[in-house]
Amino acid sequence: MKKTQAYIQANQPRFLEELLDLLRIPSISADPAYAGDVRRAAEFIANNLRQSGADQVRLEETAGFPVVYGEKIIDPNAPTVLVYGHYDVQPADPLELWESPPFEPVIKDEIIYARGSCDDKGQVFMHIKAFEAMLATNNLPCNIKFMIEGEEEIGSNNLAIFVANNKDLLQADVILISDTAIIANDIPSIDVGLRGLSYLEVTVQGPNRDLHSGVYGGAVANPINILCEMIASMHDEFNQITIPGFYEAVQELSASDRAAMAQTPFDLDAYQKDLGIASVHGEKGYSTLERASIRPTLDVNGIWGGYIGEGAKTVLPSLAHAKISMRLVPNQSSEKITQLFTDHFKSIAPKGVKVTITPHHGGEAYVMPTDTIAYQAASKALAETFGKEPVPTRGGGSIPVPTVFEKELGIKSVLMGFGLDSDAIHSPNEHFGLFNFYKGIETIPHFFKHFYALSTK
Amino acid sequence: MKKTQAYIQANQPRFLEELLDLLRIPSISADPAYAGDVRRAAEFIANNLRQSGADQVRLEETAGFPVVYGEKIIDPNAPTVLVYGHYDVQPADPLELWESPPFEPVIKDEIIYARGSCDDKGQVFMHIKAFEAMLATNNLPCNIKFMIEGEEEIGSNNLAIFVANNKDLLQADVILISDTAIIANDIPSIDVGLRGLSYLEVTVQGPNRDLHSGVYGGAVANPINILCEMIASMHDEFNQITIPGFYEAVQELSASDRAAMAQTPFDLDAYQKDLGIASVHGEKGYSTLERASIRPTLDVNGIWGGYIGEGAKTVLPSLAHAKISMRLVPNQSSEKITQLFTDHFKSIAPKGVKVTITPHHGGEAYVMPTDTIAYQAASKALAETFGKEPVPTRGGGSIPVPTVFEKELGIKSVLMGFGLDSDAIHSPNEHFGLFNFYKGIETIPHFFKHFYALSTK
Repeated sequence: MKKTQAYIQANQPRFLEELLDLLRIPSISADPAYAGDVRRAAEFIANNLRQSGADQVRLEETAGFPVVYGEKIIDPNAPTVLVYGHYDVQPADPLELWESPPFEPVIKDEIIYARGSCDDKGQVFMHIKAFEAMLATNNLPCNIKFMIEGEEEIGSNNLAIFVANNKDLLQADVILISDTAIIANDIPSIDVGLRGLSYLEVTVQGPNRDLHSGVYGGAVANPINILCEMIASMHDEFNQITIPGFYEAVQELSASDRAAMAQTPFDLDAYQKDLGIASVHGEKGYSTLERASIRPTLDVNGIWGGYIGEGAKTVLPSLAHAKISMRLVPNQSSEKITQLFTDHFKSIAPKGVKVTITPHHGGEAYVMPTDTIAYQAASKALAETFGKEPVPTRGGGSIPVPTVFEKELGIKSVLMGFGLDSDAIHSPNEHFGLFNFYKGIETIPHFFKHFYALSTK
Repeated sequence: MKKTQAYIQANQPRFLEELLDLLRIPSISADPAYAGDVRRAAEFIANNLRQSGADQVRLEETAGFPVVYGEKIIDPNAPTVLVYGHYDVQPADPLELWESPPFEPVIKDEIIYARGSCDDKGQVFMHIKAFEAMLATNNLPCNIKFMIEGEEEIGSNNLAIFVANNKDLLQADVILISDTAIIANDIPSIDVGLRGLSYLEVTVQGPNRDLHSGVYGGAVANPINILCEMIASMHDEFNQITIPGFYEAVQELSASDRAAMAQTPFDLDAYQKDLGIASVHGEKGYSTLERASIRPTLDVNGIWGGYIGEGAKTVLPSLAHAKISMRLVPNQSSEKITQLFTDHFKSIAPKGVKVTITPHHGGEAYVMPTDTIAYQAASKALAETFGKEPVPTRGGGSIPVPTVFEKELGIKSVLMGFGLDSDAIHSPNEHFGLFNFYKGIETIPHFFKHFYALSTK
């Protein structure tokens, strides 16, 4: 292990240079205009895996973007770790809010600024480099398989199909994922839960054409006003979601679990100050940490309609649109919730408008038991490199794949992320600390060491 | 009068060609990108007035776009008609819904398709050509003054200043405006009332940056959800506006006036069919005609926020925006209502967001008594050319200038429009019938004849 860590130390500058090259590829999976770049990112990952010593490296084609596969089988009887991550990134807009171009990485005060630096290129790359280091220093105790996809930001639909069709290829004892955050650089943590997601796009049509708001205003349903009323009606005065049956399957946390959660270090003032808000806002009866992790939500992610250009236009528009997503918690089915939303949204539309609803993508919530070998190995690894026991936390974000892996492969995923909530992923000026990048590379070999030890004792 | 009508008949093709040239100029006053074109339209109007025989033709500069002035004083003691209109037009978007380019006029089935064809270039041009015909045939019984502005679609703020500074120049006995519609080509009508306007832009800010909706969703106020709730709360279950004091000054129509209005020919089925709606939608207790004319409204003209691009982005945005306008009725002060809206909108914002409000422009409602010489002259003129008595109607649109003229010059305006509500003004595929264009040119000399007769008897 000493040799491995020395190798990592010695090669840090090169590891960083390689990551910056990867970050320069605008692999935005949501926007067809970048399809070629997404594929370039896949090829970059594949080449880097080969250079790092992986075998069988190839792009597994799907109906969408390819899955990069690679492996190193050191001993058929040794435990196998399947590393999952994604090389696609979120759109970069609003571009004007970036202090440096999203795909021209810059390092300022020991922090890498670029779209994808944290989510998830930077974290995927930690695994490739840790693998290189373990291999180069004859310190790889487990077999390793890589499965790096290019559609995580758009729902991983084709990955699910790929996994279902390649169960033998993907057999492993644990899936290791770094696509989440720790509480702080001096407070290590491991995500033991993730929220699910249901994402839809809705369109409300009023008249069959844009109208003059003076000639028709007051007499014809304005689709924007109606859309606002429909959206507003989906939360009650306690900020609970009003869709009938929405909370039916929700798994309530036990009093002891909530008490444990309340112990998680959290500074409300610092939180509000960081976001520039005078007050938090959410479901009555739950703490901010709970609202952002163990409770389901309904957020409008985008809305548009009518005249949004310069100046004023007195139009009564024909159409209004919104992108709406719901974060789900354990036992809520994404498919079921999508159906409940669709039925309810149509039912509350007044007679003067037509409503169309298009589901975008979804994913199920996930929970990782802390008494598993995988969790224990991650916990010990972080304890060694951070010098203190990690806190088990529940994340609010959604990574649909752990549920897919569990369903298709029967394998649990350990979410050993090294980002920070303040890394502004999905936002302008996304960044990732050099400390976090290097700490991840340093920690991963310890995970392999402990996972091997715990698996074979 | 025979000679004048014969002249008009003989020159119809040229009149049309000249109008099409005017329609080819994209004089969009709301969009700074078209500033040069707006000025070109002003120069076109000025040149055409000169060619038609007007004197003193000039561009009167303002802080914004110029006012085109021209006159013909035949006898200081004769009555004077001041013709008002505007050469600026609404933005043309959404462009993709136009069947032919908005500024490349085409004539299909006797109808001119182009932005501004009806509102208001086509109708302004009727007056210039009717003037040319009267002058060329020695049939101009009154003095005439033209005041054609370029900022009607953005609130006419500079026109108000121009009028206040040129009271002597603009002295007249009546102001004649064609910027409204008749009920149908076989049901002539004259607008005796217009609604006022208060137009504002609002911004709701939640967090100081776009956030990941998974990490923060449920715990932080989403400005789009909040904006929707605020907008929704501005109408109650009877579709009445909830701003405190909003209805205080509203002039209620007498039972007899409402009964008279109920006599206006109106086909609800045809109305709904034309708009492609299953039902009308508006304030409880009022008919569709009343909702669209004698009652105030609150419409969202545009809304935007968050991710509105292709696909899905799980963002909890920092900002949400809306353009909101209120149509006002007699005795409601635009300034007062703007203030009431501002105070109320700020008061209903929850603690987790910041609200900023920018008033765009406003205008007062207007009523024209039917017992005036001006109305009588217009009524007789339409009766002659349409073969039946026109119906006095209340329009829902807003032309701020009549109130300005009354306040500054003490002169009433007669709204003798020749468009149709179905002309899609402010919408894609705006159009104006050749019948309406020629009927307007034919009718205007009759107005001058009757106005002279009634003024001098």
